[in-house]
Amino acid sequence: MKKISKHFLKDSYHIVDLKLCSVRLIDNSRFPWVILIPKRKKISDIFQLNKKDQSLLMDEIVHISKIMKKTFRAFNLNIEKIGNVVPQLHIHIVARRKKDITWPLSVWVIKKKSYSIVGLDKVIIKLKKNFIKNRKK
Amino acid sequence: MKKISKHFLKDSYHIVDLKLCSVRLIDNSRFPWVILIPKRKKISDIFQLNKKDQSLLMDEIVHISKIMKKTFRAFNLNIEKIGNVVPQLHIHIVARRKKDITWPLSVWVIKKKSYSIVGLDKVIIKLKKNFIKNRKK
Repeated sequence: MKKISKHFLKDSYHIVDLKLCSVRLIDNSRFPWVILIPKRKKISDIFQLNKKDQSLLMDEIVHISKIMKKTFRAFNLNIEKIGNVVPQLHIHIVARRKKDITWPLSVWVIKKKSYSIVGLDKVIIKLKKNFIKNRKK
Repeated sequence: MKKISKHFLKDSYHIVDLKLCSVRLIDNSRFPWVILIPKRKKISDIFQLNKKDQSLLMDEIVHISKIMKKTFRAFNLNIEKIGNVVPQLHIHIVARRKKDITWPLSVWVIKKKSYSIVGLDKVIIKLKKNFIKNRKK
């Protein structure tokens, strides 16, 4: 998977590959959190994608939003393109709940906390199951 | 402008209306920051927009991203759908610079600071000028 920056590989786990994006779970047990990484080289901004890929990105954001909302019974979704630290284009989708640790503030106001091994397994299995059930045609 | 929540009206200023979104400057002098508000009723998530509006939203995000990047000579753009406090769907586009006050951290880790009257006028004029110059057909 040469198109994925090594920065992502150390603190996230592969969930599924869609047409445009690779979807990975962020290792932060505070929030159910995935990133979508378009499998294109040297792209750091949405406007650098061609029109077809921009449209695919929107479709995949919508698809994954629905799965995140349902899987984690989210009250709200935070969908963010930041990239201040890792420039390769990636979109965060975070399932927010009114009882989560920073609600209603941003997920960025608190340091991450890794999953336990068991917790990590559980969330990965749950997500993969829901991705298979709602497979994108 | 009945379709725009009153929450936005008190701390942001109208810049331009596009086909789908109303674009407003956020009154925070720490960062050049606009929000895009789709002029649709009772929508709080991107996936609630119909397919045509999703596509329009992507087009307008791309259009405004380019203008924000150019107008403020941004090093990077943060593009975020949060909505934890104000549920009406809105997308933040923030021009980030390596010298800004929270770089490379999120804009959410610091409290806002309003523009001076002169500063506000200046940034509104600058933005409007660039929107007119790059008018979306």
